[in-house]
Amino acid sequence: MTDIIPVILCGGSGTRLWPRSRKAMPKPFLPLVGDDTLFTATLLRCTRDFGFADPVVVTGAAHLEHVESQLPDRDATKIIVEPEGRNTAAAIALAAFSVPEDSIILVCPSDHHIGDCDAFRTAAKEAAALAADGWLVSFGIEPTAPETGYGYLKQGEPISGSGGRKVARFVEKPDLARASEFLASGEYAWNGGIFAFRAGTFLEELERHRPQILEAVRQSVQAGRTEGQRFYPDAEAFARVKSESVDYAVMENTDRAAMMPATMAWSDIGNWQALHDAQECDEAGNSVRGNAELRDCSNVMVMSDGPRVSVVGASNLIIVVDGDEVLVCTPEGAQGVGKLSGAVNQ
Amino acid sequence: MTDIIPVILCGGSGTRLWPRSRKAMPKPFLPLVGDDTLFTATLLRCTRDFGFADPVVVTGAAHLEHVESQLPDRDATKIIVEPEGRNTAAAIALAAFSVPEDSIILVCPSDHHIGDCDAFRTAAKEAAALAADGWLVSFGIEPTAPETGYGYLKQGEPISGSGGRKVARFVEKPDLARASEFLASGEYAWNGGIFAFRAGTFLEELERHRPQILEAVRQSVQAGRTEGQRFYPDAEAFARVKSESVDYAVMENTDRAAMMPATMAWSDIGNWQALHDAQECDEAGNSVRGNAELRDCSNVMVMSDGPRVSVVGASNLIIVVDGDEVLVCTPEGAQGVGKLSGAVNQ
Repeated sequence: MTDIIPVILCGGSGTRLWPRSRKAMPKPFLPLVGDDTLFTATLLRCTRDFGFADPVVVTGAAHLEHVESQLPDRDATKIIVEPEGRNTAAAIALAAFSVPEDSIILVCPSDHHIGDCDAFRTAAKEAAALAADGWLVSFGIEPTAPETGYGYLKQGEPISGSGGRKVARFVEKPDLARASEFLASGEYAWNGGIFAFRAGTFLEELERHRPQILEAVRQSVQAGRTEGQRFYPDAEAFARVKSESVDYAVMENTDRAAMMPATMAWSDIGNWQALHDAQECDEAGNSVRGNAELRDCSNVMVMSDGPRVSVVGASNLIIVVDGDEVLVCTPEGAQGVGKLSGAVNQ
Repeated sequence: MTDIIPVILCGGSGTRLWPRSRKAMPKPFLPLVGDDTLFTATLLRCTRDFGFADPVVVTGAAHLEHVESQLPDRDATKIIVEPEGRNTAAAIALAAFSVPEDSIILVCPSDHHIGDCDAFRTAAKEAAALAADGWLVSFGIEPTAPETGYGYLKQGEPISGSGGRKVARFVEKPDLARASEFLASGEYAWNGGIFAFRAGTFLEELERHRPQILEAVRQSVQAGRTEGQRFYPDAEAFARVKSESVDYAVMENTDRAAMMPATMAWSDIGNWQALHDAQECDEAGNSVRGNAELRDCSNVMVMSDGPRVSVVGASNLIIVVDGDEVLVCTPEGAQGVGKLSGAVNQ
């Protein structure tokens, strides 16, 4: 089998993790779980030591400095610098054009946390085998709660000789009642935005379903320029690309959609409560980063970049101190952090 | 009737209001409710405009600078500088020695809040009339909750021709069950540490029940020295004074103990929740001082001396940012703030 090339997508910011995540230093580049940043951890999950090929990172000029300073192996990494964000279909197409068409690319968002890296790599290799057979493979993450913030994959018939299945249906973010049904049925998985594709197959399917995107990306690549490890697609051509997600542009339309089940303690760290859930806690469910003292507390998360945080008697609370901002929210309130003035007016 | 001389006791600190209240800048000298500090507000409640005489402040050297800088009328205020803290019996004795024996002194702690100042002054004048008749008068504050942190006065028979009553019994801090009984019975009042005494009568009763305190204070006064508005009792003599509260040394022993009922929106601001209760709140029960944004919050108090505090989804919470300290506590947790490392190791 050919090498698996990790393609790391390093795009948008995460306002729901404000004030720690800010425009100038967004979520992927912060050490939110453990000592590594989410971006670095994503790269370290699939290195040569584990049998992967050198990675490709797709990012924007705004994040280039963070990307290059946090790369585990700068000389071995190709960096595609998008002139502007055009969503995932275009970003993946840029990566697919940059590698031999027989390569298997493993598309990974740079701002997720995966607790069980062995399970991730096992699923990645099984997904790659399916992709080599011409399937477009989504990771189908075993759901553990009726999340309304994720897309869901309904499992179809098994693909013989593999651990994968066809995708029967893609479902956009459901409401709580439907999400609960999905969870209870055992027939649905979360669509975590992790994919395995044969590069050539992906481009063929993109051409079939979104020829405009394929053509504009191709032109931006042809007119692009290389600078050391960096590749700059042509801005004028890229500006013509229609901004669409890979799910919407390709996965929901192709008849080659497959899913690879994965149980790997995954989290998109989509808000502060998700981060708390992903962290190691003490017996009382508390987790602390920085200078803090907790008395009679349970399920409290504290993160401080300086000031001491003293908490007495609190339960189910998130407290973040970052520079000149202090955030306090409940698990329910965590969803609303992105709407705060501080998060909006950065 | 003779003038009423306000005697303002300006002693200990309040660790349960840490981190806003600190050793170097304790509770009385902070603008915790409204724009005035508790100390200044105490003095402004009983000025010449309201028919009171010039005040006497009893304080320690550590607080002298705060006292003098916050006095509404420095030239008209006598300041007694205690060589060291010896509790309230001695502090009041120092004040009683400094005024004519026929004067009525109105003893007021400097770190309480009184919402209804007119009611306070009315009670003060009635208490002064009782004191002129030889009674030692405690304010009996109408209880509004089964507080376990206060002493209680059990009302005795009415004193004819006055709104006051004898005190049937003094009760030290009761447990919750007893406090609830007290509240339900309607026969008990809080002992708020506000007193009216004829100076000479107080000293006579102190001599009767604690001759050692009376004598040592007398010697410290005789050997003391005056410096402008300040009076410094002799340190050597004062060091011999036994440290006792006025309740324990005099009020619980004298047969002249009386109480004057007072309903005046009083609070000792004994912890953060008490402060929250004393503050004006919006419809949702929230109160904010400093830079803050609250979304979906109820009964939340925020006080910040600088950083913006953003709160989402919280109920029943107190958040205080002061310098390099952040405190978050529940109403129940507020009692435990004084035990935090930050409060203990100042």
